Amino acid sequence: MELKNDLILRAAKGEPIERYPVWLMRQAGRILPEYRAVRGALSGFKELVETPERAAEVTVQPVDILGVDAAIIFSDILVVPEAMGLEYQLIEKKGPWFEKTIRSEKGLKYASTNFDVEDRLSYVLEAIKIANKELNGRVPLIGFAGAPWTIFCYMTEGQGSKTFSESRKILYTNPTLAHELLNRITDVTIKYLKAQINAGAHMVQVFDSWAGILGEEQYAEFGLKYMEKIANAITEVPLTLFAKGAYSSISKIVKMKCNTVGLDWNTNSSEIRKMVGENRTLQGNLDPCALYSSHSEVEILTNSMLDSYKSKRHIVNLGHGVYPDVDPEKVKTFIKTVKNYEIKY
Amino acid sequence: MELKNDLILRAAKGEPIERYPVWLMRQAGRILPEYRAVRGALSGFKELVETPERAAEVTVQPVDILGVDAAIIFSDILVVPEAMGLEYQLIEKKGPWFEKTIRSEKGLKYASTNFDVEDRLSYVLEAIKIANKELNGRVPLIGFAGAPWTIFCYMTEGQGSKTFSESRKILYTNPTLAHELLNRITDVTIKYLKAQINAGAHMVQVFDSWAGILGEEQYAEFGLKYMEKIANAITEVPLTLFAKGAYSSISKIVKMKCNTVGLDWNTNSSEIRKMVGENRTLQGNLDPCALYSSHSEVEILTNSMLDSYKSKRHIVNLGHGVYPDVDPEKVKTFIKTVKNYEIKY
Repeated sequence: MELKNDLILRAAKGEPIERYPVWLMRQAGRILPEYRAVRGALSGFKELVETPERAAEVTVQPVDILGVDAAIIFSDILVVPEAMGLEYQLIEKKGPWFEKTIRSEKGLKYASTNFDVEDRLSYVLEAIKIANKELNGRVPLIGFAGAPWTIFCYMTEGQGSKTFSESRKILYTNPTLAHELLNRITDVTIKYLKAQINAGAHMVQVFDSWAGILGEEQYAEFGLKYMEKIANAITEVPLTLFAKGAYSSISKIVKMKCNTVGLDWNTNSSEIRKMVGENRTLQGNLDPCALYSSHSEVEILTNSMLDSYKSKRHIVNLGHGVYPDVDPEKVKTFIKTVKNYEIKY
Repeated sequence: MELKNDLILRAAKGEPIERYPVWLMRQAGRILPEYRAVRGALSGFKELVETPERAAEVTVQPVDILGVDAAIIFSDILVVPEAMGLEYQLIEKKGPWFEKTIRSEKGLKYASTNFDVEDRLSYVLEAIKIANKELNGRVPLIGFAGAPWTIFCYMTEGQGSKTFSESRKILYTNPTLAHELLNRITDVTIKYLKAQINAGAHMVQVFDSWAGILGEEQYAEFGLKYMEKIANAITEVPLTLFAKGAYSSISKIVKMKCNTVGLDWNTNSSEIRKMVGENRTLQGNLDPCALYSSHSEVEILTNSMLDSYKSKRHIVNLGHGVYPDVDPEKVKTFIKTVKNYEIKY
C-alpha cells in the first residue's frame, strides 16, 4: 500500500522533507481518554497488548486525534522475555514484575530460543496487520523491541530498580552466563523485528531504557555489542537506536549501521549534531515535563528545541515517553508548533 | 582533640599523604551484622537516626570493624525537610515517603526557615559529639547534607521516583515557587552544616543524588546555583560535592569553592583528572557491584580503579553507597587493597 505521508521515512534516510515529522514515544496509550476507554473494557494493559483488534485500535488513535506523522504499534518490550519463557505481570503503580528470574545457568531454561517467533508473538504481528489496514497508508507504522541489555535487566532483576544491582552483579560474578543470555535475547529480538517488518512495520526502533546504569566499558561489552548485532542484521527498513542515558557511549552508537539515533531530554542536541554532521538523523528530544507548561511556553520551548538541531535530518519527538498526566491539548500544541516550523537547512 | 589519622583531611587539601585514604558511602549501616543488631533493638531506621547514643555507635562500627580512614555520621538527608515541617517515613523496601508535599505556594507553610536549627536537629549534633568522643581522635568524622535540588525533589514528589515528573513539572509551571523553596532549603542546609562543624565534624559532604534527572541548563538554574551558595558559605572545613549522574555539569562543579569532587561509578575518572589536574581532590569511584566479585577480582578491579586517578589528590570510595547484600569480607579486601597500594605521584 502506498503511503500518503512518508515524511518520517524520508527524514530517517536523509532525503528532502518539506517539514519535520513528529511523533511521541508512548503516544499510543497513557494520555488519551479514548485509550482509557478501550483499556477500561478489558482486564488491563496485558490483555490489551494481547488482543490484536484492540491493540491496533489504540495504535491508530493518536494518528486520528493528535495528528502525528507515524503510528507505533501498541505493545510492550516484555513480550520478548515472555515468549522466551519468563511470564511477566504489570502491577498497577509498580510496573513490570516477573515471578521467576534468571540468576544462574539453571535459570536459562526460562530463556528459550527454540520456538517459532512468528507463532508465539503472532498477536503482535496480527495487530500490525490490522493497524496498517486501519491506517490505510495515512502514515507509516513503527515496530519496536527492547535492546538486549534492557531485556536482560528485567529477566535477571525481575522488576524495575534504581540500581539494577542483581543484574549488574552477574556481569562481575558470571559474565559467561550474561553473554549467553544476551546472545539468546539478541537472536530472538532480531527474528522478532524481522517478523514485525514482514508483517508491515515501515521502520523499527530499539529501546535501551537502562543503558545509563552501566559505565562506558561495561556498556560496550554487555550493551553495545548486542545492539550492534541487531543494527547489522536489520537492513530491510530504517532503524532507530535509542539508548537512554548512555551519554559516554553515544559517539559509538552514531557509528552503528542505523539511520536514526534517539536522544533523551538531557542530551545536548547541538553537541551530538556537531558529532554526526549530516551522517545520521537525530530523533528527540523535548523534555516531557515541558508539556506541563502553558500553551505559549510549550510553543517557545518546542521552537527552541527545534532550533538546536540545525539540520533537516531530524525526527521530532520527546526525549522520553509522554507522561500520563499530560493534557492532550498541550501535545497538540507541541505537534502544531513542529508542523508550523520552517526548516532553514 | 588531636587526630591520630588525618590522612583524608590532608588528601582533601592536596597535602602530602603516605597512602590513599579510604571510606565507603553508607558504610554506617546496611552491610554490618553489628549494625543490624543495634537497629533490630529499636523500632527501625528512624528511631536509630533520632537516638544519638545508638547513631554514634553505628557511626563508629565501620572504623572498628572495617578499618576505614573516616567515620561518617549515621543520619539521613531527610532530617532537613522534616525539621522544616515535612515529616517523613521510611517504608521497608519502598524508601522514603512524605504524607504531605509542596506543589503550590500554600505548601510553603511546610517549609519553614524560622526555627533554631541547632535545637531542632540537636539529635544529630549530639550524635556527632558522642561519636567523636568514642572515636577519640582515631579518624576524622564526616558530616553531610543533601543538596537543595535533591531535597526539593523529595519535598515536592513526596517519594522516590524514576522520573521525578512532579518535581520537574514545577520548574516549568512555577519557577518562582521552585526558587523560593530552593532558597529556603539552602538557608537551612548552610546553618545545618555549620552546626555539624561546630559540633565536631572535621569535613562535610553535600550529596545531590538526583542531579542526573535534569538537563544541563535546568541543573545550572535549579541545582548548581544553590550548590554553589553552600560551597561559598562553608569555609571552616574541607568540603566535598557529589552530584550523581551530573556528567555534563561536572566541569562547572570542579570550579566551585570545594576541596573534593565525588565521582559516581559511571564517571570516567581519567577524563575528570585531565579536566582538574591537581586543583581538586577526586573521590571515588569503584562500582559497588564490583564487590560482588571474588576476592582476587576485587583486588584487580580496585587496583585498576586506583591506577586511573594518576594523582595523590584522591580519596578512595565507591561510586555509590555500598549495597546491602555485599559481604563485609569483600569490603575488607577493597580496603586492604587500597591500603597496600603504592602512590606513584
